[in-house]
Amino acid sequence: MGNKEYRITFAIEGGETLSALAPEGETLLETARKAGIDIDAPCSGNGTCGKCRVRLAEGAAEGAVPRQISPEDYAAGWRLACGIKVISDLTLEVPPSAGAFKNRMKVTDLSEGRERAAFEALGKDMDEMGFRGDSGLETIALSLAPPAMDDAMADRERLLAKYAETSGREAELSIFALRKLPQTLRESDFSIICVLRKGEDRDPAVPSRDLILDILPPGAEPVLPGLAVDIGTTSVAMVLTDLRTGKLLAGASGGNGQIRFGADVISRIIASTKKGGLERLRRAVVEECILPLIQGICTKAGIPTEGIYRAVVAANTTMTHLFTGVYADYLRLEPYVPTFFQTAKYRSIDLGLNLNPDAEVLLAPSIGSYVGGDITAGVLSSGIYKKDTFSLFVDLGTNGELVFGNSELLMSCACSAGPAFEGGDISCGMRATDGAVEACSIDAETMEPALTIIGPPGQKAAGLCGSGLIDAIGELFRCGIINAKGKIIKEGKRISHDEYGAASYILAFGADSVTGADVSLNEVDIDSFIRAKGAIFSAIRSMLAIMDFSVDAIEEVYVAGGIGSGINVEKAIRIGMFPKIPVEKYHYIGNTSLSGAYAMVSSAGAAAKVTEISQGITYLELSSHPGYMDEFVAACFLPHTNGALFE
Amino acid sequence: MGNKEYRITFAIEGGETLSALAPEGETLLETARKAGIDIDAPCSGNGTCGKCRVRLAEGAAEGAVPRQISPEDYAAGWRLACGIKVISDLTLEVPPSAGAFKNRMKVTDLSEGRERAAFEALGKDMDEMGFRGDSGLETIALSLAPPAMDDAMADRERLLAKYAETSGREAELSIFALRKLPQTLRESDFSIICVLRKGEDRDPAVPSRDLILDILPPGAEPVLPGLAVDIGTTSVAMVLTDLRTGKLLAGASGGNGQIRFGADVISRIIASTKKGGLERLRRAVVEECILPLIQGICTKAGIPTEGIYRAVVAANTTMTHLFTGVYADYLRLEPYVPTFFQTAKYRSIDLGLNLNPDAEVLLAPSIGSYVGGDITAGVLSSGIYKKDTFSLFVDLGTNGELVFGNSELLMSCACSAGPAFEGGDISCGMRATDGAVEACSIDAETMEPALTIIGPPGQKAAGLCGSGLIDAIGELFRCGIINAKGKIIKEGKRISHDEYGAASYILAFGADSVTGADVSLNEVDIDSFIRAKGAIFSAIRSMLAIMDFSVDAIEEVYVAGGIGSGINVEKAIRIGMFPKIPVEKYHYIGNTSLSGAYAMVSSAGAAAKVTEISQGITYLELSSHPGYMDEFVAACFLPHTNGALFE
Repeated sequence: MGNKEYRITFAIEGGETLSALAPEGETLLETARKAGIDIDAPCSGNGTCGKCRVRLAEGAAEGAVPRQISPEDYAAGWRLACGIKVISDLTLEVPPSAGAFKNRMKVTDLSEGRERAAFEALGKDMDEMGFRGDSGLETIALSLAPPAMDDAMADRERLLAKYAETSGREAELSIFALRKLPQTLRESDFSIICVLRKGEDRDPAVPSRDLILDILPPGAEPVLPGLAVDIGTTSVAMVLTDLRTGKLLAGASGGNGQIRFGADVISRIIASTKKGGLERLRRAVVEECILPLIQGICTKAGIPTEGIYRAVVAANTTMTHLFTGVYADYLRLEPYVPTFFQTAKYRSIDLGLNLNPDAEVLLAPSIGSYVGGDITAGVLSSGIYKKDTFSLFVDLGTNGELVFGNSELLMSCACSAGPAFEGGDISCGMRATDGAVEACSIDAETMEPALTIIGPPGQKAAGLCGSGLIDAIGELFRCGIINAKGKIIKEGKRISHDEYGAASYILAFGADSVTGADVSLNEVDIDSFIRAKGAIFSAIRSMLAIMDFSVDAIEEVYVAGGIGSGINVEKAIRIGMFPKIPVEKYHYIGNTSLSGAYAMVSSAGAAAKVTEISQGITYLELSSHPGYMDEFVAACFLPHTNGALFE
Repeated sequence: MGNKEYRITFAIEGGETLSALAPEGETLLETARKAGIDIDAPCSGNGTCGKCRVRLAEGAAEGAVPRQISPEDYAAGWRLACGIKVISDLTLEVPPSAGAFKNRMKVTDLSEGRERAAFEALGKDMDEMGFRGDSGLETIALSLAPPAMDDAMADRERLLAKYAETSGREAELSIFALRKLPQTLRESDFSIICVLRKGEDRDPAVPSRDLILDILPPGAEPVLPGLAVDIGTTSVAMVLTDLRTGKLLAGASGGNGQIRFGADVISRIIASTKKGGLERLRRAVVEECILPLIQGICTKAGIPTEGIYRAVVAANTTMTHLFTGVYADYLRLEPYVPTFFQTAKYRSIDLGLNLNPDAEVLLAPSIGSYVGGDITAGVLSSGIYKKDTFSLFVDLGTNGELVFGNSELLMSCACSAGPAFEGGDISCGMRATDGAVEACSIDAETMEPALTIIGPPGQKAAGLCGSGLIDAIGELFRCGIINAKGKIIKEGKRISHDEYGAASYILAFGADSVTGADVSLNEVDIDSFIRAKGAIFSAIRSMLAIMDFSVDAIEEVYVAGGIGSGINVEKAIRIGMFPKIPVEKYHYIGNTSLSGAYAMVSSAGAAAKVTEISQGITYLELSSHPGYMDEFVAACFLPHTNGALFE
């Protein structure tokens, strides 16, 4: 790298124009990352995913012609940011599709739909377990005597005396509440409602102090908003609930802004070890993603963000480290030790969140470097920890995690599936939001597809989410359009070839797509998917084998993950993703990391139960088990090198 | 005010150039305040102090010719920012003397001098009272077993288990400590020192959790820095101490940046009620003054600011409200009720300070709207609360506060002296730092002064601090240069007259001054001072009268305040500032707000004692007592309308 520096200007289409200095020889993806400019690079700059397209408007850059860019586009100045190096001052056009993962944000009122049903089921379950109304938050209405010349007691002391007299307990005021106190008192004739968190009495005989978090004017019984957050490697989802009733107020989801540092946790960890990288990664998820989602969900629910008094975050171990700004490199280095399994109850202000500054933020506990709080929360949500029957819990995320067992024993392991199930690493992949093909069947004769697309009637296709991908590949295989290796072996108007001879199957022509470009699956996409499903299947086989169980021992299978409209299990079995056991044993239970976090925020009892569960799960490091790699290789076929497993 | 807006550009001499939009008719002082530009205006824009001088470089402004500006200067474009209104786009030159109060910052190593002596005396006193080594902070050295493939416990859980095993207590990790943990462990072979705050066990049988605040590499026994801060209306002072030994590490002081919003607390409160005003006032003291002083004191002591683990702030009631960002208007409105007397133990991060984020910050408790934590801390420091003899405690600040009594009863009251004792509101006034005339005598024949100036040998005069002012006016009166009303009644080379006929006495000619301009006292200055000393004397008389004591009942007088090198009591009595009792009964004990805060930060016991003291002091509202105004008016003479009092 030379010591010359050049000025790089990024013109973001339909957005601002930013510029940064870059040393000679740096790749433009690195420059963009340092400048905090959002360019998706799921492959972390390896030149494989082709998502970091930018257009060279002025200046020259050096780099080879990438296969993902057509000669016409190349001539028009299109490049891959990861593939070109700085050799002069430059102006780059960054298309809006860059940063799409971050920008594809969605806020819902949860008035209906699958999510709501899942939460309601969980709610009933919680009622049965007595997990309700024990969030530790309360409100109390107090009317104080107004001060006078002969009664000049200060507001705070006046309030705390009244509180002690009314509740028989001592309390303190958060600084947020103290700042609201004088004017609220005088605007409401000294009658107010206090929102408080009960002190945790370590011994009933020695009550500890309560903390008053907010001061509200009198009137309608206030809601007590609590926030449940699932931070996935690829996506972030959250729900806002009234802790008093368990009612869902709103939901929101968006892509994890860290995607531009790589699709998998290892690339993120490596990026976080660069100078200033840890803070960049923390901000990418907290400031670019979580804060705007919180703002959106609060606007929808009609409350201020400081009106959220409690939160729970469930995430895999890498995400909990990067979210809290804790150095994560040791997660990927032998002996693979996290900095923490659990954390103290930190406050919103400690974590740079925009909730009530003193809101407690709990993290679901991890049990290892690759089995995190998303799984321990998910196990609570699935209920497998209290069943006598042997259940298999499968969380389909960028990392695939498995838990097998019953109320007696629980064993877990993880495998790296890649982001395919969440639409990452797939040229037309997307999360399960409007425009996503969530189901599909193909006519074996005509090769014509029939698509089910998320969104209002008449919605055009924008891409495929995980469930659509499973369907499409299952159908392509059934119709003999692709072979066991995932290569396209038929021709027709639905089949296209690029100038390098790589073939694609077109699900929707430009005319029927949102962008005007074809929505298609190429052989690289299919290969990524096969590795993903192979990782899942081989992990299941290996874990059972190590535990000395046969596949028939599985009495129930609970499939979790935000991959779309549940799963067509038949097709998933056909392509060798899941073991061949009766379809009715499979249950798709949605995003259990989120629903588990919802249970934890609603109930201190549920949160304690998750900690108890986490301490009871045995963690299995697959990679250290001989035979796992062979299992994986054998599973990277459709359906499997040993077809007998699926007959 | 018109609805036209104009662009005002402020060119700060030797600094940056800033610009802001101002509505037609706004005064340029208001515009500067909104834009956060530092222009001193001790009189809060009433046109009396003449300190807000700016030069009109371009454009026109409307306003009368102020008496403080000579015709030559006026012709050269000099104006008072408070006296001119926006009628067009403007460019103003702001001289560096503007904001001087804020900028005059001083960091000392306290290796010698009066301050040190005062603290050492207090230290002995604390030892006697057993107030030492109970700050609640401790360190503990721990050596952990390094993790291995068959021992993959996370760092946090590994540390907390070792801590419980070693200390028999539970602990938690602050997020600051958690973030430092993984690398510090690995850089020091898993042997570390933890800095922790012991949990307050409300019952020994039910120990509460300790909090680990910092993780340090092993080696030399670390210091445990604690910070004591005195926020005065005019000045801010602080000392850094090692809580383990009580040793002083460094000291620092500077002007309170709020000065540009007015010299007295009432002007500050009114400024804080404007839109955005409360936050502007909070920042003026916290971000412009306290944070840089903390940075300076830490650099001097060679520690990071996050290495400060505990702090105490002592300040008057208005300052504690503005410092914490709490609405203060009700302090000045009947029935004069503060929002708080005491606060919870807030953490550095809650208050926007740059200490260890979880450092506890205590505020010395107030007892009324005009008797604050500076006085309760001062009473501890003075020791009058434990004496049998009747003592009078006098704190000479912008507000003068008095406490009279003994171990049986304590009575307090406040009076508004104005900033004269701290050099405010005096044309050549300054704080007691280098260049300040701190003592002075005048030859009755020649009218020539002999000055004692703070600073190294050969230091030229820059202005007068409080003690110098008392001396100078005492001498001017003794020599018959001024009369009982403070008017200059002699002529000579030391006497000058401005074009309006107002006379001045020149203490140092330009040739012998730092700035090259004369250091002098004019009749306006003398009048301000006479009102200040009159307020103090009349308050003493009134309080004693109300309590039915005569002046002879005073057995000891303790004079506090950062007014310089103690006081020449004889001269102070001669001008009618203090009652005529034997000089040896007077003791100057320095800045007791700061030394009291030092005792509180060093010792939880001392902090508890201040709370106990504060609850035992009776507050007297002088203004509501008939006769006080007459006393005041009678005291606004040299020495007093009733001269017999001083014979």
